[in-house]
Amino acid sequence: MGAATAKLLISCPDGRGIIAAVAGFIGEHGGNIINADQHSDPRHAEFFMRVDIDLDGFDLDRTSFAPAWTKVAESYGMRWRIFWSTEIKRMAILVTKESHCLSDLLWRWKTGELNVEIPLVIGNHDMLKEHTAGHHVAYHTVPITPETRVAQEQHMLDLLRDASVDLVVLARYMQVLSPEFVDAYHARMINIHHSFLPAFAGRRPYHQAFERGVKIIGATSHYVTEDLDGGPIISQSTTHVDHGDTLDDLIRKGRDLERVVLATAVRLHVENKILVSQNKTVVFD
Amino acid sequence: MGAATAKLLISCPDGRGIIAAVAGFIGEHGGNIINADQHSDPRHAEFFMRVDIDLDGFDLDRTSFAPAWTKVAESYGMRWRIFWSTEIKRMAILVTKESHCLSDLLWRWKTGELNVEIPLVIGNHDMLKEHTAGHHVAYHTVPITPETRVAQEQHMLDLLRDASVDLVVLARYMQVLSPEFVDAYHARMINIHHSFLPAFAGRRPYHQAFERGVKIIGATSHYVTEDLDGGPIISQSTTHVDHGDTLDDLIRKGRDLERVVLATAVRLHVENKILVSQNKTVVFD
Amino acid sequence: MGAATAKLLISCPDGRGIIAAVAGFIGEHGGNIINADQHSDPRHAEFFMRVDIDLDGFDLDRTSFAPAWTKVAESYGMRWRIFWSTEIKRMAILVTKESHCLSDLLWRWKTGELNVEIPLVIGNHDMLKEHTAGHHVAYHTVPITPETRVAQEQHMLDLLRDASVDLVVLARYMQVLSPEFVDAYHARMINIHHSFLPAFAGRRPYHQAFERGVKIIGATSHYVTEDLDGGPIISQSTTHVDHGDTLDDLIRKGRDLERVVLATAVRLHVENKILVSQNKTVVFD
Amino acid sequence: MGAATAKLLISCPDGRGIIAAVAGFIGEHGGNIINADQHSDPRHAEFFMRVDIDLDGFDLDRTSFAPAWTKVAESYGMRWRIFWSTEIKRMAILVTKESHCLSDLLWRWKTGELNVEIPLVIGNHDMLKEHTAGHHVAYHTVPITPETRVAQEQHMLDLLRDASVDLVVLARYMQVLSPEFVDAYHARMINIHHSFLPAFAGRRPYHQAFERGVKIIGATSHYVTEDLDGGPIISQSTTHVDHGDTLDDLIRKGRDLERVVLATAVRLHVENKILVSQNKTVVFD
Repeated sequence: MGAATAKLLISCPDGRGIIAAVAGFIGEHGGNIINADQHSDPRHAEFFMRVDIDLDGFDLDRTSFAPAWTKVAESYGMRWRIFWSTEIKRMAILVTKESHCLSDLLWRWKTGELNVEIPLVIGNHDMLKEHTAGHHVAYHTVPITPETRVAQEQHMLDLLRDASVDLVVLARYMQVLSPEFVDAYHARMINIHHSFLPAFAGRRPYHQAFERGVKIIGATSHYVTEDLDGGPIISQSTTHVDHGDTLDDLIRKGRDLERVVLATAVRLHVENKILVSQNKTVVFD
Repeated sequence: MGAATAKLLISCPDGRGIIAAVAGFIGEHGGNIINADQHSDPRHAEFFMRVDIDLDGFDLDRTSFAPAWTKVAESYGMRWRIFWSTEIKRMAILVTKESHCLSDLLWRWKTGELNVEIPLVIGNHDMLKEHTAGHHVAYHTVPITPETRVAQEQHMLDLLRDASVDLVVLARYMQVLSPEFVDAYHARMINIHHSFLPAFAGRRPYHQAFERGVKIIGATSHYVTEDLDGGPIISQSTTHVDHGDTLDDLIRKGRDLERVVLATAVRLHVENKILVSQNKTVVFD
Repeated sequence: MGAATAKLLISCPDGRGIIAAVAGFIGEHGGNIINADQHSDPRHAEFFMRVDIDLDGFDLDRTSFAPAWTKVAESYGMRWRIFWSTEIKRMAILVTKESHCLSDLLWRWKTGELNVEIPLVIGNHDMLKEHTAGHHVAYHTVPITPETRVAQEQHMLDLLRDASVDLVVLARYMQVLSPEFVDAYHARMINIHHSFLPAFAGRRPYHQAFERGVKIIGATSHYVTEDLDGGPIISQSTTHVDHGDTLDDLIRKGRDLERVVLATAVRLHVENKILVSQNKTVVFD
Repeated sequence: MGAATAKLLISCPDGRGIIAAVAGFIGEHGGNIINADQHSDPRHAEFFMRVDIDLDGFDLDRTSFAPAWTKVAESYGMRWRIFWSTEIKRMAILVTKESHCLSDLLWRWKTGELNVEIPLVIGNHDMLKEHTAGHHVAYHTVPITPETRVAQEQHMLDLLRDASVDLVVLARYMQVLSPEFVDAYHARMINIHHSFLPAFAGRRPYHQAFERGVKIIGATSHYVTEDLDGGPIISQSTTHVDHGDTLDDLIRKGRDLERVVLATAVRLHVENKILVSQNKTVVFD
């Protein structure tokens, strides 16, 4: 949309003059800051920053940026990444049998709301194959059993690597992935869990919620870590239920939450608005 | 407000003809149903009903109702209670140091929003004594230590009994009460917990929430049972937080939730709109 | 789902003994009330009731119900309708260029969440034709210009009548329909308006909202009447926005509201849970 | 809380290098930016910025800041203000008969949540006088009739001036103030309106909402301008209602919204987080 931009994400030990140093650097190189956001975490003395740079007039590009920037970055001990608006992320979607999140993501992608490429969908069943048919997206059925898990995960990793995937979305994918798989997409794999975590982690959260007699249900999107349902939370939402709601009503209402909460997390990630630290997310939206 | 009414609460095994039997009985005795609500729990084959009766023309009263009604009630195996609109519940409030829930309940009572009598407030500290001063409500300081717990709980029970208390509200009362105390006010003691239960039960829920990095916080009102923070939930609410919110911000935002969630539960109880079954509430609002 | 049921919707002048009369009638005919809900509007002295009847053992059917019931109905001056669970409503969807509500309704229908038949979609453009392609739903393009309006509306009415349509859903259909058309589907035509009515009625509500600088946006589903955006409201929802949200952000966030608010209204109508009176809805959910 | 800080609020024509210039200036003078937020309004080519400065090491103070800063400010055509954390705003509250907003503000002030001084409350009735009694806040009864309006408004302005009031809060004050009065507290007078504006502006919004049959109600806090209920919106919130809610229920539910929405706006203003432009607010929270 409009002019080329770049987004610089920084985290570093908190200190004096960081904003001035960053803004000064960009100005010296002819760039203009069109947006910026900062956050300080006083408990861990950590500083976070997002800077959107208008590239019109900027004298650095994908090749020359890092060498020039290194001096500033090193003097403040920064971890940093830069994303150029011309780069489009490649997203894979993993599914099982539930269609609502998959359909929703495909619809947002088709209408341009979600600016990604979707080279493939992987299902451990083939039930959702037809959902991708009209979208010219490859669907790979990779069934998983206890015996085949190791080999099949490797197969999936091959598929993802061959497709140069940047982001893996678990759209109600009902298999627990191995630490090796999780590690391969550290802070690049997003899951939707159908409860307000940390409540009702694990299996069948709507059944758990129904049993407990809660008056709200929720959904949580988070980065996947080895700690099941324990990764950094990106987005959460809840809605009211009452004694008249059956388990099926909870599941129905929950679907509407899950779609939006997952799509929100995916959008934020795709727009490079999330930093992760201390098992939490800083979301510069 | 206006004419005298009675509210009949019923639970019984599900079956045919219950509504007709109840409506028929009331009609035969000259009463008129001005409101009714029903709920069936198919899993436990249990039926719940609330009936509001206009007493104008009704030929039964507090003395004569039970003998007449018994035949219907027994034929369906009903547990039931009837509340007459002329009876006002007597509510005690237990507090520690936090004033927001106490202030809120007193304000709602003073302005007539909450139709109760408040004969006393008990605090295990005396910090909130002045809050009750202008309201002509007795404040009893009953400090509790491990050594004095048994005696002091007995003292509190005496105070509550002497004041003919029907309902005990734990308005951020930070002591765990003994099973004996809990039992004395079974389904008549309401607590506010400052999290969306079952997440963050126990101590310091905002600290737990802050550590976990959730994007929503919540509050839960529930009947107190021996299972700490595990009783039947009456009302819950949540609000959004983000990485910029400090622990103090969570506590501040949470106060606004807690006040409303507790007041809602108290109002529903006072208006006799809650039935408890299977550790859940049926709320006929 | 399970046994055959019928749903009886009643409105009548408020009075004594109505519930008993209804429950008595159903019981005499061997039916069992599995759910019931009532509402009294004291300002207009009007009474509303919904009764769900388990037909197992009920000795009346579609033919014999009305003659038997008439006596009760007339004695209380009731307007009433009965819906039999074996009858599935036939729904038409009218669209223009925006796909989100159409896609959402089709998805809910396909997965069985929405229990209707969808014989046709009508668009005044053909842009959404492909959206219906995979669903075996007929798509009719009926363009409308000031000159062709009268003839084209008649054409649409013919299409709807030929398809025996019970319910017309305006899923972001951007034409104003004539009073004659509206009248043909009185209380059977549902619109989604992309604002919290009555604010921002008429054209371009998100633009209006953006200009006004509101901190919430909303969506409203309502029955269509001759009074543009003035019909009985069925469901509304809002979400927060702030100064950082562009007009495009409002439109994007709004789509997620619109889908759910429209689908909610359609579900409630399809499940026969709505009564209309005094330009308001009574929703027995 | 802790060290002394200052908050610099800037608005100016959008342009290149503004952030760098601001950050550079602060750094040169030994200050440290502990927080900053920016916003660009592309339609009006306007730029907004809030900068929180840690004063430890900063070589400018209340006297010397303006002369030093002027050069930067002028070169970018800035409108700007600076607030020093040692300055506490002085807030007056205007009321009529409804106590909930007044009680809520006093409670937040008393518990330290709201960091202000409250030298006086003015009521056009004396009904709320007792509410201020325990708080050592002066209560002035200034009744207003059509005949006395001019003189009484002048009396109120005198009271406010004598008390060096910075902020006037209309806490359900039911009189329309003259343009002269409004002008005297431009962008320093906050009102709570009990609807989701722009719907139901003017008198008796809950009655209007009840008549219209809406499914949500709301509350709006805004700066007061000559355009009744038309000033820049600061905060809004809504809650669900249904056909079972009476007008009294709407009013009761609304009170809980109003308190929080007004307190939020007051907090944001007191913390110097609001900029006004084009009849909208930029809220840097």
